[in-house]
Amino acid sequence: MTATWSPATGSLDIATLQRLYTEGALTPSAVIDAIYDRIAARGDDHVWIYLAPRADLLAEARKLEETGPTGDPLWGIPFSVKDCNDVPGMPTTNALPEMAYTPETTGQAMNRLLESGALCLGKVNMDQFGIGLVGVRTPYGACSSVFNEEFISGGSSSGSGVSVGAGLVSFSVANDAAGSGRVPAAFNNIVGLKPTPGFISNSSVSGGGSLKSAETMTVFALTVEDAVTVGKRMGGYDPSYEFSKPEADQVDLTIAPLPKSFRFGVPAGAALRFFGDDEAAKLFDQAIARLETMGGTRVDVDFTPFEETQKLLYGGPFIAERALSMDAVTAQYREHIHPVTLSILETSSNHTAVDVFRAIHKVAALKRDTRATWDAIDILLVPTTPTIYRKSEILADPIQLNAQLGIYTNFVNLMGMCGVAVPNGFRPDGLPLGVTFLAPSWQDAKAASFAAAFQKATGLPLGATGNPLPA
Amino acid sequence: MTATWSPATGSLDIATLQRLYTEGALTPSAVIDAIYDRIAARGDDHVWIYLAPRADLLAEARKLEETGPTGDPLWGIPFSVKDCNDVPGMPTTNALPEMAYTPETTGQAMNRLLESGALCLGKVNMDQFGIGLVGVRTPYGACSSVFNEEFISGGSSSGSGVSVGAGLVSFSVANDAAGSGRVPAAFNNIVGLKPTPGFISNSSVSGGGSLKSAETMTVFALTVEDAVTVGKRMGGYDPSYEFSKPEADQVDLTIAPLPKSFRFGVPAGAALRFFGDDEAAKLFDQAIARLETMGGTRVDVDFTPFEETQKLLYGGPFIAERALSMDAVTAQYREHIHPVTLSILETSSNHTAVDVFRAIHKVAALKRDTRATWDAIDILLVPTTPTIYRKSEILADPIQLNAQLGIYTNFVNLMGMCGVAVPNGFRPDGLPLGVTFLAPSWQDAKAASFAAAFQKATGLPLGATGNPLPA
Repeated sequence: MTATWSPATGSLDIATLQRLYTEGALTPSAVIDAIYDRIAARGDDHVWIYLAPRADLLAEARKLEETGPTGDPLWGIPFSVKDCNDVPGMPTTNALPEMAYTPETTGQAMNRLLESGALCLGKVNMDQFGIGLVGVRTPYGACSSVFNEEFISGGSSSGSGVSVGAGLVSFSVANDAAGSGRVPAAFNNIVGLKPTPGFISNSSVSGGGSLKSAETMTVFALTVEDAVTVGKRMGGYDPSYEFSKPEADQVDLTIAPLPKSFRFGVPAGAALRFFGDDEAAKLFDQAIARLETMGGTRVDVDFTPFEETQKLLYGGPFIAERALSMDAVTAQYREHIHPVTLSILETSSNHTAVDVFRAIHKVAALKRDTRATWDAIDILLVPTTPTIYRKSEILADPIQLNAQLGIYTNFVNLMGMCGVAVPNGFRPDGLPLGVTFLAPSWQDAKAASFAAAFQKATGLPLGATGNPLPA
Repeated sequence: MTATWSPATGSLDIATLQRLYTEGALTPSAVIDAIYDRIAARGDDHVWIYLAPRADLLAEARKLEETGPTGDPLWGIPFSVKDCNDVPGMPTTNALPEMAYTPETTGQAMNRLLESGALCLGKVNMDQFGIGLVGVRTPYGACSSVFNEEFISGGSSSGSGVSVGAGLVSFSVANDAAGSGRVPAAFNNIVGLKPTPGFISNSSVSGGGSLKSAETMTVFALTVEDAVTVGKRMGGYDPSYEFSKPEADQVDLTIAPLPKSFRFGVPAGAALRFFGDDEAAKLFDQAIARLETMGGTRVDVDFTPFEETQKLLYGGPFIAERALSMDAVTAQYREHIHPVTLSILETSSNHTAVDVFRAIHKVAALKRDTRATWDAIDILLVPTTPTIYRKSEILADPIQLNAQLGIYTNFVNLMGMCGVAVPNGFRPDGLPLGVTFLAPSWQDAKAASFAAAFQKATGLPLGATGNPLPA
């Protein structure tokens, strides 16, 4: 087995690396060397906004090797960081190069990773300020799906999704307000863990993020198990962040076997939309059939409250929360801000203080309206996205197509829910799509357990690496 | 003992009535007769907006007597209802007579009372729409403190406070956004139970209340035990109200004995303000001394986060939530609305959508800042109000003095806290003042336990009835 880990194609999933590290068959420095070669081989893929010098990472890896594996599952594990997150000594840009700064400190979640022996390679591309699900709203060039350079990588965590899917890192730290921690998982055939807001503190995110009261840090990884390993480490109450929740310390993110029989919800009727992508519809039907084989009973659920909530995220006054977070930045860097992003932020002035409370009341009522649904199902299954678009399509219709991509993701944080996005196979043209398992607040372990069982059942390779799920 | 229950002065506390009912020494109809005589004797005290005909209540009481006591502690217990709450068959005005309507239904909390065998006498006066802590913002005439007609009764639940303090009912159902369920308790020497928002559903409140996301229904009673008896009945998750919380079904509102030693917080330094009322300051010192005698250790706590939050309730954009709830009413009845109330509602347009999110973030941060305080204390003791004002003073300076009255109450609901207001004695001029025991969300039983022990320790008579606390 050892001999088969190839620098060019060997899997970076955490389980495999840890096994090889423990066996003494592989070293972190060998992995780092392999990764820099892989990055060089990819050429200018627009993934990295800041890539740490190879020599620095090799030095860090060798330092780890001096003492050897600590037993920490993140020891020697390479990762990338979405460029809205602070990592000491690396510039943060939020995809706005003019505002670049190099932080000396970061928050609890990132510190826990850095202290574990994990190796941070650098900062990766994103839709500016994390606003968008597409990955093209950036001056650093648009990332592409790892499967086809004409198609979008998804966003806003574009570089995160690609760096994991291309086998350049074991995991990537990102964040998610509208779906940024899930959509790139779908388009790069990887896993996106989006916890209940308040579980992983946003104090590592520059300015705490743009939708502070609802967004969350997230993890992209090759396997659900890996995402959970990282999420466990990052989670926990953090008094330095006002929307961190004390309940975070009670979460046990352990994956459990599925019950022999279970009920999974699926959006009923016309709410299940694919905007003409029949292949995407077929793939979702396959996911349903797979869950039925696994013991699941499909329950068609009224998707109206979720749909109404998702419309409010950008169509309602919540954009004012982002405008608030971006206030100082927009004032100082107005002419440098991506025109689409600026046009979105400027809609905040269309809403009054009264509108905000009306929307808050509406979301509370819609959330209440979902309680009967949750009583009737164990888990909610949705397509992660209804389809995938070409970059050229997004550039031609940037707002509308972005909105279409978010119909299964936009409502999740506003309703305090959690979810895990997993691969669900490929269209005949080779583009991947995914599904997401959604659950109410603090049922993160349940969502992860369904996602893990589903990933095993698909038998899909990891990202675009061709490597199988480890045994 | 039986012979001593006098129709003119006999106590209406629930424990006494239930004992006498069970002994067969008193009947609900005798109590009803006594009450209508007491009401008549008081003359026009501005308490009642709608008083049900004596004959109707007597018929109701006699119907109960046909079957006899059910064992329900609320069987045959008379109560009044603040006129923002719906009671089927009685007009609701919200102290705006022009908008009067007579509902055919009401919400869960009120239904539970009506089904218990409790007897609703009618609807009582209030500051219009529940906006105010004074009781003078009403076209029905201002109630007075039961101890001095020159002084305010407190508000907004003015008629509720007086009807209980004057011995006209055993309890009153009210509501509280800024302190409306506590301030009248102080000024009428009674108890105000203000639960954690989300425990008692607001679905019985006309339009759900004005600060829907944070306000709560409350209970005024002569004793903490009585308030808890009523609160227990009213509490519980109600899917018909979007801000009712599922946690409500887990609350056990049982009064427990105090530990032998405990730590109670008191606002530190200059935050403990009485606006020149030295007698109020002395009374609060006595409350501290009493708690020390009871085993308490005083802990001076940084009151800044609470103080900053209280300023936001009227000084910040939360007024827009009230404006939203009042939208249709202000549009239709503008010229009839109390001028002070209208001027307050109109400040909502001073705030933008961005302001609301800024305030929400600020409250979240301030709430977070109180966590260390809660770790250091078992309970927080505050004066219910810093002082009491004459009606003439309030009429001369309606906004500023109202704001001063709320410095120990305004922050409580915005921070999701609970509290119980109890009597704390009298100034030399015979005016009563109170203290409030405050606790974080869902620690309602703890606040009630401290309040119950404190009320016993004071040995004060009940309201203005001269009756002692029952053994």
